[in-house]
Parts: sequence; C-alpha cells; structure tokens
Amino acid sequence: MSASTLPFDGLLIGSSLATLAEPTGYGEITDGALAWKDGVLAYVGPRADLPGSPETLAREVIEASGWVTPALVDAHTHLVFAGDRAREFEMRLQGATYEEIARAGGGILSTVRAVRDADEDALFEQSLPRAQALLRDGVTTLEIKSGYGLDFESERRMLRVARKLGQTLGITVRTTYLAAHALPPEFKGNADGYVEALCAWLPDLHAEGLVDAVDAFCESIAFTPTQTRRVFETARALGLPVKLHADQLSDLGGAGLSAEFEGLSADHVEHTNEAGVRAMAASGTVAVLLPGAFHVLRDTKLPPLDLFRAHGVPMAVATDCNPGTSPLLSLRQAMQLACTHFRLTPEEALRGATTHGARALGFHDRGQLRVGMRADFVVWHVRHPAELCYWLGGDLVHSVHAGGVRAA
Amino acid sequence: MSASTLPFDGLLIGSSLATLAEPTGYGEITDGALAWKDGVLAYVGPRADLPGSPETLAREVIEASGWVTPALVDAHTHLVFAGDRAREFEMRLQGATYEEIARAGGGILSTVRAVRDADEDALFEQSLPRAQALLRDGVTTLEIKSGYGLDFESERRMLRVARKLGQTLGITVRTTYLAAHALPPEFKGNADGYVEALCAWLPDLHAEGLVDAVDAFCESIAFTPTQTRRVFETARALGLPVKLHADQLSDLGGAGLSAEFEGLSADHVEHTNEAGVRAMAASGTVAVLLPGAFHVLRDTKLPPLDLFRAHGVPMAVATDCNPGTSPLLSLRQAMQLACTHFRLTPEEALRGATTHGARALGFHDRGQLRVGMRADFVVWHVRHPAELCYWLGGDLVHSVHAGGVRAA
Ligand SMILES: [Zn+2]
Ligand SMILES: [Zn+2]
Repeated sequence: MSASTLPFDGLLIGSSLATLAEPTGYGEITDGALAWKDGVLAYVGPRADLPGSPETLAREVIEASGWVTPALVDAHTHLVFAGDRAREFEMRLQGATYEEIARAGGGILSTVRAVRDADEDALFEQSLPRAQALLRDGVTTLEIKSGYGLDFESERRMLRVARKLGQTLGITVRTTYLAAHALPPEFKGNADGYVEALCAWLPDLHAEGLVDAVDAFCESIAFTPTQTRRVFETARALGLPVKLHADQLSDLGGAGLSAEFEGLSADHVEHTNEAGVRAMAASGTVAVLLPGAFHVLRDTKLPPLDLFRAHGVPMAVATDCNPGTSPLLSLRQAMQLACTHFRLTPEEALRGATTHGARALGFHDRGQLRVGMRADFVVWHVRHPAELCYWLGGDLVHSVHAGGVRAA
Repeated sequence: MSASTLPFDGLLIGSSLATLAEPTGYGEITDGALAWKDGVLAYVGPRADLPGSPETLAREVIEASGWVTPALVDAHTHLVFAGDRAREFEMRLQGATYEEIARAGGGILSTVRAVRDADEDALFEQSLPRAQALLRDGVTTLEIKSGYGLDFESERRMLRVARKLGQTLGITVRTTYLAAHALPPEFKGNADGYVEALCAWLPDLHAEGLVDAVDAFCESIAFTPTQTRRVFETARALGLPVKLHADQLSDLGGAGLSAEFEGLSADHVEHTNEAGVRAMAASGTVAVLLPGAFHVLRDTKLPPLDLFRAHGVPMAVATDCNPGTSPLLSLRQAMQLACTHFRLTPEEALRGATTHGARALGFHDRGQLRVGMRADFVVWHVRHPAELCYWLGGDLVHSVHAGGVRAA
C-alpha cells in the first residue's frame, strides 16, 4: 500500500489549461499540470511548479497535449424520451402545415404517447445513446427533465430513467420535474385541474428522491403565470429549487417570475425585458441560452444579451436536447450555434457551458479548474480553446474525466 | 479456395435500404439485403428474394440493423491546409474589424503562409484528422482543392497530400487545382500576371497525375470572368474538366461561365440568375450548395432553389470544409444546415450528398445502391433516413464501407 502515500491519485501533464478561474479570460496556463485526489482537484498550475517529478506524485500519470477545460455542464435537456420526430421534421420541410402534422400524429403529444407506451427498460435503452453522445463530447454533468409523461407513473418512469443514466455512465444527472410541460389529453379544457394534479404528484416523487428541481413551460400555448406560480409554490413548500421555460415566444414576465422565486435559472428568455433582467440579476438567476431551438425554429428574436452582460446576469449555454425543436446531441455544437446565432464570444460560450451551466444547476463545486473543485475535466485535441466553438462535427475529445475517473 | 466459389464476397442483412435508385423517393427496401463482389454491388433487394441462405452466398455476412444508404460524397472541400483560423473567428466575435484581423495576420493569406511553411509531412499530419472525421461520418469519396499554396511547389504539395490522404484511408479523393483562389503577395497588383503563371504551372502538375479538375474563385474580391475564362481554356486544352466558385457574393455570371465550359459544377451559386440556371440545365452542370459558409457568414441570400428544381438542375450538398468560412468536419452536418437554412427536404439533402455529389465529381459508378455500382455504403443507427438531417452532433454511424471493405 506504499503507493497510497503519494500525494495525488492522478496527474495530467503536457496540456495547456483553460481554468476559467477568474471572472474573465480563459485563465490560461501554458504547459500546465492538473492533479487530483479522492475525485477532487488538488493541484492546478504550471507543470514547472509541481512539487516533484510526476512519478513521485501520483500512481496515474497522463501525458496529454492540446487543452484541458472544465468538463461541460449541460443545464437544460429533455433527453429522456421515446421515438423521434424526424418524420415530422421531414413533413415540415415538405411543406406540411402544423394541422397536417398533428393529424398525422406529430407534435409533442406524439412523444407523450411514445413515452407512455415505453416501459422503463425501453425508455432507458432509447435514451442511453443520447446521454452517451453528450458525454463523448465532454459533458459530465447534465440536467434531464421529465415532461413527456404527464401522468404520475410516466413522469416517475422518466425521472427514474434519468437517475439510472447518471449511475450507468458515472456522471452527474440532475433531475427536473416538468410535468407542467403540456396539457395531457385527459385534462383537455381543464388546465387548472391538471396543475392541481401535477402539484399533488410532486410530494411522492420528491419523497422517492427523484426530483432535484421543478420547472414549468410558461407560455401562451402552455401554462399561465398564475398556474406557474401555483407549481412554484408547491415546489417551495417542499424546499425544491425552481427554474422556468420563460419568454421564449412572448413576454409573459416569466424571467421575473423565476427570479421572484429565486429560481436557479430562466431558460430561452428571447423576449425577456429589462425589468426581467434586473430581477434575475437581483436574485442570482442564470439565463440559460438555448441556441439549438433558435436554430431549428429559424427564430430571429435574440435574447437581450447586452442587458444580461450589463446587469451581470450569468449566461449558460445548453443543448435543450429534445425531439421536437432541438435535436442536439452535442453541447459543443450548441456552443457553436451560440457563437454563430447569438454572437457570443467563444470564451462566453465556454463559460456558459461550464461555470455558468454549473451555477444554473446550483453547483458550486465544478465548472472551473480550481483546487478543491471536482476533478471533472476534458482533454481536447485543439490548439486554442476557441476551436471548441469553431468546428461543426468532428471529434475533438481526447478524454473525459469525472471525479478523476475516465468516463469517455 | 472453395470459399471463392460463393457468389458474393460480402452480404449485409437486417437493415432497411435507402437505395435512391429512382429519381424521387428514398428507394426504400424494408428488410433488405446488399451483396458485393470485387468491390461492386451484386445484389440489392429484399432479403426474402436472396437466392439462398446467407452462409451459402458469401464468406462475410454482416448482420446489421438501422438503415443503409449510399456512402456520402463530399464534392467540395479545402481540407488540406495548415493552422486554423479559430483565433480569427474569436476576434470577429469580439468585434474586431476585417482590417484589425488582417493586421493581426488573419484572413486567407494567413492560411497561405501556414501552408507554405508546412512541409509535406506536416501538411499531411494536420489534414489527416479532417479527412478521417469526414470518413467517420460516412464519406468515402471526397474532393480536395489546392489553393492555399499559390506558388508551384506549394500547390503541388497540397495536391500530393490530397492524393496521399485517399491512399492512406482507402477512400476516393478527387483533386482540384484551385491556384486561382486568391492573389499571392508576390503578384500584388498583377492579377493577370498571376493567372498566366498559374496556367503555366498546370501542365506539369497534370503530367504528374495530380489534377482531376480545375476550379477558380470568380468574384469581385478574387478573379474576373475574363481571368477565369483564361484558366478554363488552359484546362480545356489539357482535357481537364472545370468547376467554379460562382456567384457567392454577387452575380458575375459565374454559373453561366461554368456551363459554357460544360463545367462539372457551379458552387455556392447564391446570386445565380435564371439565365445561369438555364445554362446549367443545358450543360448538365450540378449546383453545389454550401450551407456551411452560409451559416458561418450568416448569409441571408438563398440560392435560387426553386429555379434549380424547375429546370432540373441537380443540387449537391457539400461541406466546403475550410478554415475561414466553413469549418465543417461532417457532411451530415452540412445536410442538417441545408435543411435548416435552405429548406431542402431530407431526401433532397441525402441525394445531394450522394447521387448528385457523385455527379458533381463526374462519377457514374456511385451515389446510389444499384447492382453494378461500387459497394460504397454506410450503415446508420437510425429508424428513418430523415434522421441523418435531423440530429446535430452525435454518432449515427454503425460502419462505413468503401468498395466492400470496411473503412470506418
Ligand atoms: Zn426545454
Ligand atoms: Zn470553396
């Protein structure tokens, strides 16, 4: 057991580091070294300042090149679902109207039907490759929402599958209860009744340990601010943090509502006004940008990026991985879209997919390379971190590490 | 040697086929079978119609699932280059002007400098991962242009590296001489003189077997139609086919010029007018759509897609993989962008990246699954071919086969 007396479990040398440890800049360390013990970073700095030669410091020494960044954090996904909506995507491009697509069985309720029909194993089998795809492109922490079940058992099944994905892949999954996503057919014409029902389901799901946060889709085509408030009050009574699909299609004051409940985040936020931005700044609510849906829907209304910057609202970038509006299987590609469509700088996009993504999930132990943080990091085959936002396609990952353990 | 008496070398069963064998539709064969001998498809049809049980038909029997399509053909790339332009991409997003970027050493001439400074091995090592990335996402035939050397030895080196990439990866590379890409510094103020020089270099390069076609960048910021004509006449005298970067930023009649020389293709073609489209239709010139550059440049001028359809001009889809305007490492992602930005149907995009891509390179032996064609095909983990255009990111490839041999 003499090996265990070495100061570190693992040590990585040969790469440059983008630590993101300061509020601006990449926090670049050329020819850096990164060491961890018990899953936590124990050294982050120049290789030249290591307190000894590599073999005297750690059992596992990784000689790499390229750049190391904090592992990516995907703060908004709907990746547990069954079926896909590629045929609907095709019909839309063939000129079908929304009515024709609905008549052909498309739309969100087609995913609800598929999820209700899928047992837990089927749902897991179909969702696993999506979580693996995110992991292979650098994600070790991701959020997964329910919201395609819309009845107690189906929502529960989605949340159980989300938990199982994290356990299976050795990564962190945060579950979000989003039963207030759409109105299920059995509550047609009775949205208030559905909201009461979904609020009544929450305590049992929470007691089972399946819920880390609560979300709603507050929009003219979904739930009203009053209904959303009802959901949030239920969450608050249980001590659960909230977040909101806010102001995507219109300004219903969703960002302000999330802030009022000290929400972790307000997501989409294309139509958020300055009062909403101020409220978010005051409550520490993160703006989660979802450029995938913006891209696929060919949206033109940009989120108020300069207001977020001016008021110091952190901007996260997430995939919104979902079968209808954002079939994204890579957070790096969401970063590319954030730069292209939203004109984020590559540094903002990287921070959005790491530091600020972590914060949007309530984590303070990851998203930067600093001593004391989790040893969640990615080694990339790149010459500059801006390349992460530059290439579309390709495989830039050398290796992905979660808690110091190689996960991909 | 009794095995060699089996009718096929290889047989694939268990997948559906998208043969693209007819002018419209996927040419779908559910529960299909695909067999090849000597690198050529020898059976394409329902599994039920196979003339015997699999083990009596071929030595190699692949049991797959999902869908099989023709392997992808990338008809327009600049993937041999050195360096990258990610820092320039970042500077642009930080608000730098083109002048500032040029002063910081950016722009196409920065790539020219990097290519001139790279020896053949370095250029190969840097370009290989890009060709591999395309291959891993389904490409077995690709075009590679010169055009970052701009002197005889550097253009020659680029073309040699392109050839070597094809040999190394076991895929087909078509080389295109694009010395008329930009004006090198040593010819500043003397574009006509440079055109004379590059025309004088062509016979030797052709004699060395390095040139399959000739291209030029005909644009107000590059070469005039008169200069382009000079290049094309040189190509024609050598029996080399031509193609053209045409009408990307303005309508200089480039499409008509390519058609006048019976060009294989006119590429970009955003500003092509109806006369140009008619000329292309008459000469059988393919329109090569490059949605990657459209995306990265946030262009808004769509190519005349309905005119191409109305006049029966085949539309290919290609990556334009290049460090300045289209850092794409996946033809599938170009297909996604073609659907999103150009509203191509997934079927059009797939045909554009197979059948019409092959035609844009002058090939008649690939791009469809038909008996007698090359056994170049891809097995995809998808439930419907439209998924190829639907997902951003992820890995949908089960395997890639070139001439019946597994290449990825
Ligand atoms: Zn969402
Ligand atoms: Zn080009």
